Amino acid sequence: MNTGHSETHSLKERHTANARALLRHLFDTAVAAVDPLAVVAPHLPAPPKGRTIVLGAGKASARMALAVEQNWAGELSGLVVTRYGYGEPCKRIEIVEAGHPVPDDASHAVACRMLDMTKSLTADDLVIFLISGGGSSLLSLPAPGLSLEEKRQINIELLKSGAAINEINCVRRHLSSIKGGRLALSCYPAQVVSLIISDVPGDNPAVVASGPSVPDRTITEDARAILKKYAIPVSPAAHALLSDPALAAPSHDDERLRDNRTIVVATAQQALDAAAAAASKAGYAPLILSGSMEGEAREVALVHAGIARQVIQYGQPIPKPCVILSGGETTVTVRGNGRGGRNTEFMLALAIALDGLPGVHAIACDTDGIDGTEDNAGCLLEPRSMARAAKLAVDARAHLANNDSYGFFEALDDLVVTGPTRTNVNDFRAMLIE
Amino acid sequence: MNTGHSETHSLKERHTANARALLRHLFDTAVAAVDPLAVVAPHLPAPPKGRTIVLGAGKASARMALAVEQNWAGELSGLVVTRYGYGEPCKRIEIVEAGHPVPDDASHAVACRMLDMTKSLTADDLVIFLISGGGSSLLSLPAPGLSLEEKRQINIELLKSGAAINEINCVRRHLSSIKGGRLALSCYPAQVVSLIISDVPGDNPAVVASGPSVPDRTITEDARAILKKYAIPVSPAAHALLSDPALAAPSHDDERLRDNRTIVVATAQQALDAAAAAASKAGYAPLILSGSMEGEAREVALVHAGIARQVIQYGQPIPKPCVILSGGETTVTVRGNGRGGRNTEFMLALAIALDGLPGVHAIACDTDGIDGTEDNAGCLLEPRSMARAAKLAVDARAHLANNDSYGFFEALDDLVVTGPTRTNVNDFRAMLIE
Repeated sequence: MNTGHSETHSLKERHTANARALLRHLFDTAVAAVDPLAVVAPHLPAPPKGRTIVLGAGKASARMALAVEQNWAGELSGLVVTRYGYGEPCKRIEIVEAGHPVPDDASHAVACRMLDMTKSLTADDLVIFLISGGGSSLLSLPAPGLSLEEKRQINIELLKSGAAINEINCVRRHLSSIKGGRLALSCYPAQVVSLIISDVPGDNPAVVASGPSVPDRTITEDARAILKKYAIPVSPAAHALLSDPALAAPSHDDERLRDNRTIVVATAQQALDAAAAAASKAGYAPLILSGSMEGEAREVALVHAGIARQVIQYGQPIPKPCVILSGGETTVTVRGNGRGGRNTEFMLALAIALDGLPGVHAIACDTDGIDGTEDNAGCLLEPRSMARAAKLAVDARAHLANNDSYGFFEALDDLVVTGPTRTNVNDFRAMLIE
Repeated sequence: MNTGHSETHSLKERHTANARALLRHLFDTAVAAVDPLAVVAPHLPAPPKGRTIVLGAGKASARMALAVEQNWAGELSGLVVTRYGYGEPCKRIEIVEAGHPVPDDASHAVACRMLDMTKSLTADDLVIFLISGGGSSLLSLPAPGLSLEEKRQINIELLKSGAAINEINCVRRHLSSIKGGRLALSCYPAQVVSLIISDVPGDNPAVVASGPSVPDRTITEDARAILKKYAIPVSPAAHALLSDPALAAPSHDDERLRDNRTIVVATAQQALDAAAAAASKAGYAPLILSGSMEGEAREVALVHAGIARQVIQYGQPIPKPCVILSGGETTVTVRGNGRGGRNTEFMLALAIALDGLPGVHAIACDTDGIDGTEDNAGCLLEPRSMARAAKLAVDARAHLANNDSYGFFEALDDLVVTGPTRTNVNDFRAMLIE
């Protein structure tokens, strides 16, 4: 007779199934809250006297274009570039696809075409920019006089030099025909409205997709100083670009951009707030740690494990049952040759750190639907995950050492696969503790 | 006329002075809450029929001995080892000092003496163990038949192999004459009471100082499997130690240790709770994230920066004014040749990540009073720290790259110097946000 035990077991399984379903629901709710079809329409400007042109770049931008088409009564045309596989069937706005995270020929071709389209605009015309994360790679063109090869080389040298990412981005912006507000400047004297879905911690619109329509506060002197600091050699052409004010990207207070409007229509915070409301409705107290969390994924996982233990042992920072939420963008320093993205790497390290701690379930996914380079958005974790892995002879530590978090969760059949969501507010993490 | 500006400036300075004073007060309150003189006496057992012997090892253990002496009416003798400079003037218990974090000859000599002292004990006698963090190094002796040189070599090989810390500790315990409950077993048939100040995340008494008086749940087979997994060669003597049940450390359910009592008298949680109460009293809502937070110090700092930004921008996870508290033990992977410990490294990375974010002050200190190998417990951070460093031409990123966090905060005159506190519940971090 083992009825009591079986009942406990089946109760546990039901709990686990419920927890998994709830976590997945929280992720879906988060993504739905930042779906371009939900967030773009309320911010559309009034139609202009003249023409309306839509230009856009980013993983969410094709779907943003679809949202414009569905909600725009007047005349409309345009060109939007998104990642391969992220397209939407638009009728009036042309959608093209290009390379991400590494630009390809399509990235350059579409950049040239967009610059051309801005040439004949008048003050009666309106340009609606649809900008989202990934646009920096999808829309890429060196500044006039600079070869693609040299721009690439400078980029490689900077990456090797140990320069900070904001330093690298500063140089990139000042060597581009598109970034740092140059594409918007090219639209002058048309009206310009930028609708932005932010995937960057802090939601600075000048940083999303390197700001093709929004200048930032760095100047050419900054870019020169960075190249000097890391002793990166540049050609006379690049030097001229960074010295001649006439060739520089517009400054943040450029008169010609003064009337441009910039609206961030979706952020990680909106996604987290929606998930928090859904958790609350399901009877779990939500706690949002941060929408702009950064750090090496496996170390961020250790911090989360410490918090989970604290909830269970001391009811801090919040009593259970609860859901701990965070967003932002973690980093993976690749040392092995396995498969996996930031979110599965975070989860594998969390699995090891929690080591089967009862009551803790988790989900971590990229809101764009693709975590890294595989087919999954992320994965799920449950208290039994480590024991299940051990039973399958899948070694968690070895997988982590090899950066093969995808392989680990694939073996457990715990990957979350959504396909491209066609929006992008970066990472989404939730720990459910009961 | 610039009165308004001056007033604002002086107000800001007053705020900063207040914030610094409060953070320092929180740290002092945290340390006071786990002072051996406060926490040991309530847990002292009744005097035995026979002799009472005090044995102890750890950074807090000399002060624990002082607490016993001050509160023990009957006959008393004993031997306690602490770190150089951590002694206390005891009369009946002999205090010796030894090497930490690397054992030295004094560590071995005192271990031999303690084993000798346990030889003649009877069932009428009482042994009070006073165990605290650092004891593993301060009290160190290879198991019989194993040379010091081989024990050292196995340790070095394990560290190089990438073995997890709990794996390394498992092997260490099983190759020791002291650890894993062996010292307590040697006291049989005396009564044994262990009073423990925990510096380990999770507060498992078998882990503090590698548990000289408390066996853990690993067995010799585990140690053998770990050595095999990482292909560490061992001598026939070491092999015998790990194969012969008669030579093994006691198991966690050993009959001879059944009546032993183990009391954890101070934890990181007690320190954090005391600081939280003090913050509350000062008008700042406290939030304890975790008392067992682990992870690479500079990455844990990025997580804290994300949380600070969230408090300021969204009033989450808690509205300001607030104090965010955490404890545990971070890690520093040393790549440079600068000076500094876990806490100053955390703070330097936090300074860079916050980059002068208004309203955020912080303190991070080791509760034992020594952060790493210098003379400071930790350091303070204020919104102006980065600007002040820039004025002094002190490059924060260069200092972090060189693991020279001590040099950075020394230049700012923001080190916190307390000297040894003679207690030890690991790291203490507080961010004050207003």
